Amino acid sequence: MRVAVVGATGAVGREMTRILEERDFPVDELVLLASAKSAGRTLRFRGEEVTVRELSLEALLGVDVALVSAGAAVSRSFVPEAAAAGTTCIDNSSAFRMEPGVPLAIPEVNPEALEGAPRIVAVPNCTTITAMLAVGPLHRAAGLRGLVLSSYQSVSGAGWKGERELFEQIEKLRGREEDLGRPDREALPEGEVFGKTIAYNVVAKVGDFGPDGYTGEESKIMAEPRKILGLPELRVVATSVRVPVPVGHAVSILAEFSRPISPEEAREALRAAPGVEVRDDPANGVYPSPIEAAGLDVALVGRIRRVEHDPNALALFSCADNLRMGAALDAVHVAEHLFTR
Amino acid sequence: MRVAVVGATGAVGREMTRILEERDFPVDELVLLASAKSAGRTLRFRGEEVTVRELSLEALLGVDVALVSAGAAVSRSFVPEAAAAGTTCIDNSSAFRMEPGVPLAIPEVNPEALEGAPRIVAVPNCTTITAMLAVGPLHRAAGLRGLVLSSYQSVSGAGWKGERELFEQIEKLRGREEDLGRPDREALPEGEVFGKTIAYNVVAKVGDFGPDGYTGEESKIMAEPRKILGLPELRVVATSVRVPVPVGHAVSILAEFSRPISPEEAREALRAAPGVEVRDDPANGVYPSPIEAAGLDVALVGRIRRVEHDPNALALFSCADNLRMGAALDAVHVAEHLFTR
Repeated sequence: MRVAVVGATGAVGREMTRILEERDFPVDELVLLASAKSAGRTLRFRGEEVTVRELSLEALLGVDVALVSAGAAVSRSFVPEAAAAGTTCIDNSSAFRMEPGVPLAIPEVNPEALEGAPRIVAVPNCTTITAMLAVGPLHRAAGLRGLVLSSYQSVSGAGWKGERELFEQIEKLRGREEDLGRPDREALPEGEVFGKTIAYNVVAKVGDFGPDGYTGEESKIMAEPRKILGLPELRVVATSVRVPVPVGHAVSILAEFSRPISPEEAREALRAAPGVEVRDDPANGVYPSPIEAAGLDVALVGRIRRVEHDPNALALFSCADNLRMGAALDAVHVAEHLFTR
Repeated sequence: MRVAVVGATGAVGREMTRILEERDFPVDELVLLASAKSAGRTLRFRGEEVTVRELSLEALLGVDVALVSAGAAVSRSFVPEAAAAGTTCIDNSSAFRMEPGVPLAIPEVNPEALEGAPRIVAVPNCTTITAMLAVGPLHRAAGLRGLVLSSYQSVSGAGWKGERELFEQIEKLRGREEDLGRPDREALPEGEVFGKTIAYNVVAKVGDFGPDGYTGEESKIMAEPRKILGLPELRVVATSVRVPVPVGHAVSILAEFSRPISPEEAREALRAAPGVEVRDDPANGVYPSPIEAAGLDVALVGRIRRVEHDPNALALFSCADNLRMGAALDAVHVAEHLFTR
């Protein structure tokens, strides 16, 4: 099969190429595409150097499947035409996620969305995936009614430049850490990526603010679960917060169901589910954290507990590698589902 | 007045002494007390060095008011006797917070609790204070029914040793930050204070786990608002998470009221309230973050927004300096309320 990775030099694109190799996806030819700026660089795939070329429609001619992670504007500019020309496009951006007729797919959660050989498939937002891998199996068990989500999102969600900004700021504050209890506000490093100092801070802004006061990220996290679970009336409230963590998103979840569900029943449902690993033995130090989820091909779910006033509700905490499980791996899973079964 | 600070060398105790000086509290004699280990050290107060003495009941004889921040076990061991002997004890620990008859007081929120010259007053948990300064005025406006809280708590909540552990781990990982996307788990610094690596990570454990799966911190945050607001039936669910921030707690809040309340009305109520500053102009980069709240004598509240499916609910985000606004300043405010009005 001819496989393309679009946005190949980005943080998610790199993971896509790695995962294609790791999972032995049947690649006959790998086409790596990126912006003009990155064209000419080489990346390793199966022991060989592959030269990155500039993205164009022509470059995709004859490509069977393209894994795309180059931002919504780029996706909008070429995905519909490439799909019409015969390339199945699995798109990690927000461009087509809410478009009717385009499946928004997490194969572990809603594989039915992939029926009918769709030519464009959208990969959900990384925080949505982190939450849905935990909540999907519980929805099947007890019927989801509502979600309250507060996220702890790593800087790599903003790509390499997000990681760089965190590490540079940590370095700038080196030797002055103990002054941060009464910081000299003028001397705090200001970021270009996050709007506020992200080192030693948390920033309640992921994406841009809309007129309703919600950020773009929050709006995605509220809309996407409805489509994925086929629950247009699902109540969702989300607060997205960037934390000074390089890789790995976490979500604090309050989930309300239409019938009672115990933590034990939830753990059983999750143990039987794909793409998720229960880590829930807090007395022995077993509960998820982002650094433990980094590099893994599952979401880690734990801290599952009853809600005193509502037997139909559960509180839980889910962590996943936002570049792999929350993006690149989902795209490859979709490709496997469509082409290798 | 003879004023004592108990736990004077701790992170909160230091702030208590500072704030007594800053606010010109009518101190005739300052008695600084701590464990035997810290006795003999000196701290500056109004330009003079005051020697820290070992805590004992005798050391408190004749003291009018003691600001106590030395942990629940220490408080339990001497506060009732000291209070019986005539010292008003304003206690920052969890020892007496839920005890009937002991006021749990945030003077800005529930000053009525301080009527009747109580001899023991409990200062709420730092995260409770961060949330209540924002929610108290909204409760008075619209009648609070429920709270969903997810916290972003700084390491100084665990004292100096918490800050030290964060900075040491950051230093240990220096030069290896970029490997954290696929961390060598064996090489991750393990903490004594936080149970898991806190540098470049978030840890969903603050305090110890109870049999219900909630941490001690979460149980406090769920119980204390009921007592402070006089709402024994208030529904509260909390998830407490430690983040790699030195000073400053943040809380993501979903608040449900008994009647509709708009973000505009909420902002107005908060602008008229003491102890809180509205920072809510996100389009211009104005919203709270912990590093901006550090060192301030107010909680910063913003990100106030409607909840699509419920006109009676609001989402918001509150940040406060956990050592000052969330602890030491509340204690001094209580002392001022009792002794200087």
